[in-house]
Amino acid sequence: MPGLEDMYPPGATTRVRVHELDQRLEGAQRPGHFEGVATVVTKLFGATRPHRAYFGQKDAQQAALITRMARDLDMGIEIVTVPTVRDSDGVALSSRNAYLSDEERKAARCLVGALRAANTAFHEGERDAVRLRERMVAVLAAEPLARPNYAEVVDPTTFESPGTLAVLAVRIGRTRLIDNHPLGQPLDDAS
Amino acid sequence: MPGLEDMYPPGATTRVRVHELDQRLEGAQRPGHFEGVATVVTKLFGATRPHRAYFGQKDAQQAALITRMARDLDMGIEIVTVPTVRDSDGVALSSRNAYLSDEERKAARCLVGALRAANTAFHEGERDAVRLRERMVAVLAAEPLARPNYAEVVDPTTFESPGTLAVLAVRIGRTRLIDNHPLGQPLDDAS
Repeated sequence: MPGLEDMYPPGATTRVRVHELDQRLEGAQRPGHFEGVATVVTKLFGATRPHRAYFGQKDAQQAALITRMARDLDMGIEIVTVPTVRDSDGVALSSRNAYLSDEERKAARCLVGALRAANTAFHEGERDAVRLRERMVAVLAAEPLARPNYAEVVDPTTFESPGTLAVLAVRIGRTRLIDNHPLGQPLDDAS
Repeated sequence: MPGLEDMYPPGATTRVRVHELDQRLEGAQRPGHFEGVATVVTKLFGATRPHRAYFGQKDAQQAALITRMARDLDMGIEIVTVPTVRDSDGVALSSRNAYLSDEERKAARCLVGALRAANTAFHEGERDAVRLRERMVAVLAAEPLARPNYAEVVDPTTFESPGTLAVLAVRIGRTRLIDNHPLGQPLDDAS
Protein backbone atom coordinates (compact mmCIF):
# COMPACT_ATOMS: atom_id res chain seq x y z
CA MET A 1 0.00 0.00 0.00
CA PRO A 2 1.65 3.26 -1.08
CA GLY A 3 1.41 6.20 1.32
CA LEU A 4 -0.29 9.51 0.61
CA GLU A 5 3.08 11.16 -0.06
CA ASP A 6 3.93 8.43 -2.60
CA MET A 7 0.66 8.87 -4.47
CA TYR A 8 0.64 12.68 -4.38
CA PRO A 9 4.26 13.93 -4.30
CA PRO A 10 4.94 17.68 -4.18
CA GLY A 11 4.74 19.34 -7.59
CA ALA A 12 2.30 16.83 -9.07
CA THR A 13 -0.27 18.78 -11.10
CA THR A 14 -1.46 16.23 -13.68
CA ARG A 15 -5.18 15.50 -13.64
CA VAL A 16 -7.42 13.29 -15.76
CA ARG A 17 -10.97 14.32 -16.52
CA VAL A 18 -13.82 12.53 -18.28
CA HIS A 19 -15.75 15.60 -19.36
CA GLU A 20 -19.57 15.76 -19.44
CA LEU A 21 -20.05 12.35 -17.79
CA ASP A 22 -18.17 13.65 -14.74
CA GLN A 23 -20.66 16.51 -14.32
CA ARG A 24 -23.83 14.43 -14.25
CA LEU A 25 -25.65 13.19 -11.09
CA GLU A 26 -22.91 12.10 -8.65
CA GLY A 27 -20.53 14.56 -10.31
CA ALA A 28 -22.95 17.44 -9.80
CA GLN A 29 -23.40 16.44 -6.15
CA ARG A 30 -19.70 15.98 -5.48
CA PRO A 31 -17.59 18.58 -7.36
CA GLY A 32 -14.12 17.29 -8.22
CA HIS A 33 -14.94 13.76 -7.08
CA PHE A 34 -14.67 12.07 -10.46
CA GLU A 35 -11.54 14.01 -11.41
CA GLY A 36 -9.94 12.53 -8.30
CA VAL A 37 -11.23 9.06 -9.19
CA ALA A 38 -10.05 9.26 -12.82
CA THR A 39 -6.63 10.55 -11.80
CA VAL A 40 -5.93 8.03 -9.04
CA VAL A 41 -7.26 5.09 -11.07
CA THR A 42 -4.99 6.12 -13.96
CA LYS A 43 -2.08 6.14 -11.51
CA LEU A 44 -3.01 2.72 -10.09
CA PHE A 45 -3.34 1.34 -13.63
CA GLY A 46 0.08 2.80 -14.49
CA ALA A 47 1.67 1.35 -11.35
CA THR A 48 0.13 -2.13 -11.70
CA ARG A 49 -0.49 -2.53 -15.47
CA PRO A 50 -3.45 -4.90 -15.11
CA HIS A 51 -5.01 -6.82 -17.99
CA ARG A 52 -8.42 -6.49 -16.37
CA ALA A 53 -9.88 -4.33 -13.63
CA TYR A 54 -13.15 -5.01 -11.81
CA PHE A 55 -15.56 -2.32 -10.64
CA GLY A 56 -18.95 -2.70 -8.96
CA GLN A 57 -22.23 -1.88 -10.69
CA LYS A 58 -23.31 -0.32 -7.37
CA ASP A 59 -21.14 2.70 -8.29
CA ALA A 60 -22.53 2.69 -11.82
CA GLN A 61 -21.35 6.15 -12.82
CA GLN A 62 -17.83 5.44 -11.58
CA ALA A 63 -17.76 2.17 -13.55
CA ALA A 64 -19.05 3.93 -16.68
CA LEU A 65 -16.50 6.73 -16.26
CA ILE A 66 -13.55 4.36 -15.87
CA THR A 67 -14.74 2.24 -18.79
CA ARG A 68 -14.83 5.32 -20.99
CA MET A 69 -11.51 6.63 -19.70
CA ALA A 70 -9.74 3.32 -20.37
CA ARG A 71 -11.12 3.30 -23.91
CA ASP A 72 -10.50 7.01 -24.60
CA LEU A 73 -6.87 6.82 -23.44
CA ASP A 74 -6.14 3.50 -25.19
CA MET A 75 -5.10 1.97 -21.89
CA GLY A 76 -5.49 -1.58 -23.19
CA ILE A 77 -7.21 -2.61 -19.94
CA GLU A 78 -10.50 -4.49 -19.91
CA ILE A 79 -12.90 -2.92 -17.42
CA VAL A 80 -15.29 -5.52 -16.00
CA THR A 81 -18.39 -4.35 -14.14
CA VAL A 82 -19.56 -6.86 -11.52
CA PRO A 83 -23.19 -7.05 -10.31
CA THR A 84 -24.35 -5.38 -7.12
CA VAL A 85 -24.54 -7.72 -4.14
CA ARG A 86 -27.69 -7.30 -2.06
CA ASP A 87 -28.56 -8.22 1.49
CA SER A 88 -31.48 -10.59 2.18
CA ASP A 89 -33.91 -7.64 2.22
CA GLY A 90 -32.62 -6.31 -1.09
CA VAL A 91 -30.54 -3.43 0.29
CA ALA A 92 -27.28 -3.08 -1.68
CA LEU A 93 -24.19 -3.97 0.34
CA SER A 94 -22.12 -0.87 1.11
CA SER A 95 -19.53 0.03 3.68
CA ARG A 96 -21.76 2.99 4.49
CA ASN A 97 -24.53 0.72 5.76
CA ALA A 98 -22.50 0.38 8.97
CA TYR A 99 -23.34 4.01 9.78
CA LEU A 100 -27.09 3.30 9.84
CA SER A 101 -29.10 2.80 13.05
CA ASP A 102 -31.48 -0.18 13.09
CA GLU A 103 -34.34 2.13 12.23
CA GLU A 104 -32.37 3.75 9.41
CA ARG A 105 -31.30 0.36 8.10
CA LYS A 106 -34.96 -0.55 7.69
CA ALA A 107 -35.68 2.80 6.04
CA ALA A 108 -32.84 2.15 3.60
CA ARG A 109 -35.03 -0.48 1.95
CA CYS A 110 -36.80 2.37 0.16
CA LEU A 111 -33.91 2.59 -2.33
CA VAL A 112 -34.28 -0.93 -3.66
CA GLY A 113 -38.04 -0.52 -3.24
CA ALA A 114 -37.96 2.43 -5.61
CA LEU A 115 -35.84 0.51 -8.11
CA ARG A 116 -38.19 -2.44 -7.84
CA ALA A 117 -41.19 -0.19 -8.56
CA ALA A 118 -39.48 1.22 -11.66
CA ASN A 119 -38.45 -2.26 -12.80
CA THR A 120 -42.00 -3.59 -12.36
CA ALA A 121 -43.37 -0.68 -14.39
CA PHE A 122 -40.72 -1.31 -17.04
CA HIS A 123 -41.70 -4.99 -17.23
CA GLU A 124 -45.32 -3.86 -17.64
CA GLY A 125 -44.29 -1.85 -20.68
CA GLU A 126 -43.67 1.61 -19.26
CA ARG A 127 -40.84 3.29 -21.23
CA ASP A 128 -41.37 6.95 -20.39
CA ALA A 129 -38.43 8.13 -18.29
CA VAL A 130 -40.52 10.77 -16.52
CA ARG A 131 -43.18 8.25 -15.47
CA LEU A 132 -40.58 5.68 -14.45
CA ARG A 133 -38.95 8.37 -12.36
CA GLU A 134 -42.30 9.21 -10.74
CA ARG A 135 -42.65 5.59 -9.61
CA MET A 136 -39.33 5.84 -7.80
CA VAL A 137 -40.10 9.23 -6.29
CA ALA A 138 -43.42 7.95 -4.92
CA VAL A 139 -41.74 5.07 -3.10
CA LEU A 140 -39.07 7.36 -1.64
CA ALA A 141 -41.70 9.90 -0.56
CA ALA A 142 -43.46 7.22 1.47
CA GLU A 143 -40.40 6.74 3.69
CA PRO A 144 -40.28 9.49 6.37
CA LEU A 145 -36.57 9.00 7.12
CA ALA A 146 -35.55 9.34 3.45
CA ARG A 147 -34.44 12.61 1.91
CA PRO A 148 -34.07 11.93 -1.82
CA ASN A 149 -31.08 13.50 -3.54
CA TYR A 150 -31.86 12.42 -7.09
CA ALA A 151 -33.81 9.69 -8.86
CA GLU A 152 -33.42 9.42 -12.61
CA VAL A 153 -33.65 7.00 -15.51
CA VAL A 154 -30.56 7.58 -17.63
CA ASP A 155 -28.43 6.27 -20.45
CA PRO A 156 -25.93 3.85 -18.87
CA THR A 157 -22.94 5.31 -20.74
CA THR A 158 -23.65 9.06 -20.78
CA PHE A 159 -25.85 9.27 -17.65
CA GLU A 160 -28.13 11.62 -19.51
CA SER A 161 -31.90 11.18 -19.49
CA PRO A 162 -33.71 9.32 -20.98
CA GLY A 163 -32.33 5.81 -20.78
CA THR A 164 -32.85 2.46 -19.11
CA LEU A 165 -30.65 2.70 -16.04
CA ALA A 166 -32.56 3.70 -12.91
CA VAL A 167 -30.23 5.55 -10.53
CA LEU A 168 -30.86 7.20 -7.21
CA ALA A 169 -29.19 8.82 -4.24
CA VAL A 170 -30.96 9.21 -0.92
CA ARG A 171 -29.97 10.50 2.49
CA ILE A 172 -31.07 8.33 5.35
CA GLY A 173 -30.31 10.36 8.46
CA ARG A 174 -26.73 11.54 7.98
CA THR A 175 -25.77 8.74 5.59
CA ARG A 176 -25.93 9.21 1.84
CA LEU A 177 -26.73 6.00 -0.02
CA ILE A 178 -26.77 5.31 -3.77
CA ASP A 179 -28.19 2.42 -5.76
CA ASN A 180 -29.16 1.66 -9.34
CA HIS A 181 -30.67 -1.01 -11.56
CA PRO A 182 -30.61 -1.68 -15.29
CA LEU A 183 -34.35 -1.79 -16.01
CA GLY A 184 -35.57 -5.00 -17.58
CA GLN A 185 -33.08 -7.17 -15.73
CA PRO A 186 -34.26 -9.29 -12.78
CA LEU A 187 -33.84 -7.55 -9.44
CA ASP A 188 -33.20 -10.62 -7.35
CA ASP A 189 -33.51 -10.40 -3.62
CA ALA A 190 -35.23 -12.22 -0.80
CA SER A 191 -37.69 -9.50 0.16
CA MET B 1 -0.61 5.20 -38.58
CA PRO B 2 -4.06 5.37 -36.97
CA GLY B 3 -6.60 7.66 -38.62
CA LEU B 4 -8.23 10.70 -37.01
CA GLU B 5 -11.42 8.70 -36.37
CA ASP B 6 -9.40 5.98 -34.61
CA MET B 7 -7.66 8.48 -32.34
CA TYR B 8 -10.75 10.55 -31.58
CA PRO B 9 -13.84 8.32 -31.80
CA PRO B 10 -17.31 9.83 -31.17
CA GLY B 11 -18.12 10.14 -27.48
CA ALA B 12 -14.52 10.43 -26.33
CA THR B 13 -14.39 13.13 -23.63
CA THR B 14 -11.34 12.15 -21.56
CA ARG B 15 -8.63 14.79 -21.33
CA VAL B 16 -5.31 14.95 -19.52
CA ARG B 17 -4.03 18.23 -18.13
CA VAL B 18 -0.74 19.18 -16.50
CA HIS B 19 -2.00 22.16 -14.53
CA GLU B 20 0.05 25.34 -13.97
CA LEU B 21 2.90 24.25 -16.27
CA ASP B 22 0.41 24.10 -19.16
CA GLN B 23 -0.54 27.76 -18.63
CA ARG B 24 2.95 29.24 -18.81
CA LEU B 25 4.62 30.74 -21.91
CA GLU B 26 3.67 28.46 -24.84
CA GLY B 27 0.50 27.48 -22.97
CA ALA B 28 -0.51 31.12 -22.54
CA GLN B 29 0.11 31.76 -26.25
CA ARG B 30 -1.70 28.65 -27.42
CA PRO B 31 -4.80 27.93 -25.28
CA GLY B 32 -5.63 24.22 -25.13
CA HIS B 33 -2.44 23.24 -26.94
CA PHE B 34 -0.81 21.36 -24.06
CA GLU B 35 -4.06 19.65 -23.07
CA GLY B 36 -4.13 18.24 -26.60
CA VAL B 37 -0.47 17.22 -26.35
CA ALA B 38 -0.88 15.56 -22.93
CA THR B 39 -4.01 13.70 -24.03
CA VAL B 40 -2.68 12.39 -27.34
CA VAL B 41 0.71 11.43 -25.88
CA THR B 42 -1.10 9.51 -23.10
CA LYS B 43 -3.05 7.69 -25.81
CA LEU B 44 0.08 6.92 -27.83
CA PHE B 45 1.80 5.66 -24.68
CA GLY B 46 -1.24 3.48 -23.93
CA ALA B 47 -1.33 2.08 -27.45
CA THR B 48 2.41 1.38 -27.71
CA ARG B 49 3.52 0.84 -24.07
CA PRO B 50 7.11 2.04 -24.60
CA HIS B 51 9.90 1.63 -22.05
CA ARG B 52 11.40 4.95 -23.16
CA ALA B 53 10.16 7.91 -25.16
CA TYR B 54 12.36 10.60 -26.71
CA PHE B 55 11.42 14.27 -26.97
CA GLY B 56 13.45 17.19 -28.29
CA GLN B 57 14.87 19.92 -26.06
CA LYS B 58 13.84 22.36 -28.79
CA ASP B 59 10.25 22.04 -27.50
CA ALA B 60 11.47 22.40 -23.92
CA GLN B 61 8.11 23.07 -22.30
CA GLN B 62 6.53 20.11 -24.07
CA ALA B 63 9.37 17.84 -22.91
CA ALA B 64 9.04 19.14 -19.32
CA LEU B 65 5.27 18.67 -19.41
CA ILE B 66 5.45 15.09 -20.66
CA THR B 67 8.20 14.27 -18.17
CA ARG B 68 6.02 15.52 -15.33
CA MET B 69 2.91 13.81 -16.69
CA ALA B 70 4.65 10.43 -16.97
CA ARG B 71 5.87 10.76 -13.38
CA ASP B 72 2.58 12.10 -11.96
CA LEU B 73 0.52 9.32 -13.55
CA ASP B 74 3.01 6.53 -12.67
CA MET B 75 3.27 5.60 -16.34
CA GLY B 76 6.53 3.71 -15.84
CA ILE B 77 7.96 5.26 -18.99
CA GLU B 78 11.37 6.92 -19.06
CA ILE B 79 11.18 10.27 -20.85
CA VAL B 80 14.48 11.13 -22.52
CA THR B 81 15.09 14.69 -23.70
CA VAL B 82 17.48 14.88 -26.66
CA PRO B 83 19.57 17.98 -27.45
CA THR B 84 18.51 20.54 -30.04
CA VAL B 85 20.16 20.09 -33.43
CA ARG B 86 21.37 23.33 -34.99
CA ASP B 87 22.18 24.34 -38.52
CA SER B 88 25.67 25.56 -39.40
CA ASP B 89 24.69 29.15 -38.49
CA GLY B 90 23.26 28.08 -35.13
CA VAL B 91 19.57 28.26 -36.08
CA ALA B 92 17.66 25.37 -34.48
CA LEU B 93 16.36 22.83 -36.96
CA SER B 94 12.57 22.99 -37.26
CA SER B 95 10.04 21.93 -39.85
CA ARG B 96 8.82 25.52 -39.72
CA ASN B 97 12.10 26.82 -41.14
CA ALA B 98 10.81 25.69 -44.55
CA TYR B 99 8.26 28.52 -44.44
CA LEU B 100 10.99 31.19 -44.22
CA SER B 101 12.16 33.25 -47.20
CA ASP B 102 15.92 33.59 -47.65
CA GLU B 103 15.79 36.98 -45.97
CA GLU B 104 13.68 35.63 -43.09
CA ARG B 105 15.97 32.63 -42.71
CA LYS B 106 18.87 35.04 -42.10
CA ALA B 107 16.76 37.08 -39.68
CA ALA B 108 15.96 33.87 -37.78
CA ARG B 109 19.55 33.89 -36.52
CA CYS B 110 18.45 36.45 -33.95
CA LEU B 111 16.91 33.68 -31.82
CA VAL B 112 20.15 31.78 -31.29
CA GLY B 113 21.93 35.16 -31.15
CA ALA B 114 19.75 36.18 -28.20
CA LEU B 115 20.40 32.85 -26.46
CA ARG B 116 24.13 33.24 -27.10
CA ALA B 117 24.08 36.73 -25.57
CA ALA B 118 22.34 35.42 -22.44
CA ASN B 119 24.72 32.47 -22.24
CA THR B 120 27.75 34.73 -22.54
CA ALA B 121 26.42 36.97 -19.78
CA PHE B 122 25.74 33.89 -17.64
CA HIS B 123 29.31 32.67 -18.17
CA GLU B 124 30.52 36.13 -17.10
CA GLY B 125 28.64 35.69 -13.83
CA GLU B 126 25.32 37.36 -14.50
CA ARG B 127 22.57 35.55 -12.54
CA ASP B 128 19.80 38.14 -12.49
CA ALA B 129 16.90 36.84 -14.60
CA VAL B 130 15.73 40.35 -15.49
CA ARG B 131 19.18 41.38 -16.77
CA LEU B 132 19.67 38.10 -18.62
CA ARG B 133 16.30 38.69 -20.24
CA GLU B 134 17.33 42.21 -21.23
CA ARG B 135 20.34 40.81 -23.08
CA MET B 136 18.04 38.64 -25.16
CA VAL B 137 15.53 41.42 -25.79
CA ALA B 138 18.32 43.74 -27.01
CA VAL B 139 19.48 41.21 -29.61
CA LEU B 140 15.92 40.60 -30.84
CA ALA B 141 15.22 44.35 -31.01
CA ALA B 142 18.17 44.77 -33.38
CA GLU B 143 16.53 42.52 -35.98
CA PRO B 144 13.92 44.48 -37.99
CA LEU B 145 12.10 41.37 -39.25
CA ALA B 146 11.68 39.93 -35.73
CA ARG B 147 8.55 40.44 -33.63
CA PRO B 148 9.37 38.96 -30.21
CA ASN B 149 6.57 37.01 -28.55
CA TYR B 150 8.31 36.29 -25.28
CA ALA B 151 11.86 35.99 -23.93
CA GLU B 152 12.31 34.69 -20.39
CA VAL B 153 14.76 32.93 -18.10
CA VAL B 154 12.77 30.28 -16.27
CA ASP B 155 12.95 27.21 -14.07
CA PRO B 156 13.30 24.22 -16.44
CA THR B 157 10.62 22.16 -14.64
CA THR B 158 7.98 24.77 -13.69
CA PHE B 159 8.71 27.35 -16.42
CA GLU B 160 8.31 30.07 -13.82
CA SER B 161 10.85 32.87 -13.51
CA PRO B 162 13.56 33.02 -12.28
CA GLY B 163 15.59 30.05 -13.41
CA THR B 164 18.43 29.05 -15.71
CA LEU B 165 16.61 28.07 -18.88
CA ALA B 166 16.51 30.84 -21.48
CA VAL B 167 13.39 30.47 -23.64
CA LEU B 168 12.01 32.61 -26.42
CA ALA B 169 9.39 32.78 -29.12
CA VAL B 170 9.68 35.17 -32.05
CA ARG B 171 7.66 35.80 -35.16
CA ILE B 172 9.71 36.16 -38.32
CA GLY B 173 7.24 37.30 -40.95
CA ARG B 174 4.29 34.94 -40.61
CA THR B 175 6.32 32.14 -39.05
CA ARG B 176 6.47 31.69 -35.28
CA LEU B 177 9.77 30.20 -34.11
CA ILE B 178 10.79 29.02 -30.64
CA ASP B 179 14.19 28.19 -29.19
CA ASN B 180 15.80 27.77 -25.78
CA HIS B 181 19.07 27.07 -24.06
CA PRO B 182 20.04 25.85 -20.58
CA LEU B 183 22.36 28.67 -19.48
CA GLY B 184 25.86 27.58 -18.54
CA GLN B 185 25.98 24.80 -21.11
CA PRO B 186 28.01 25.25 -24.29
CA LEU B 187 25.98 26.58 -27.20
CA ASP B 188 27.83 24.85 -29.98
CA ASP B 189 27.40 26.03 -33.53
CA ALA B 190 29.54 26.98 -36.46
CA SER B 191 28.71 30.68 -36.51
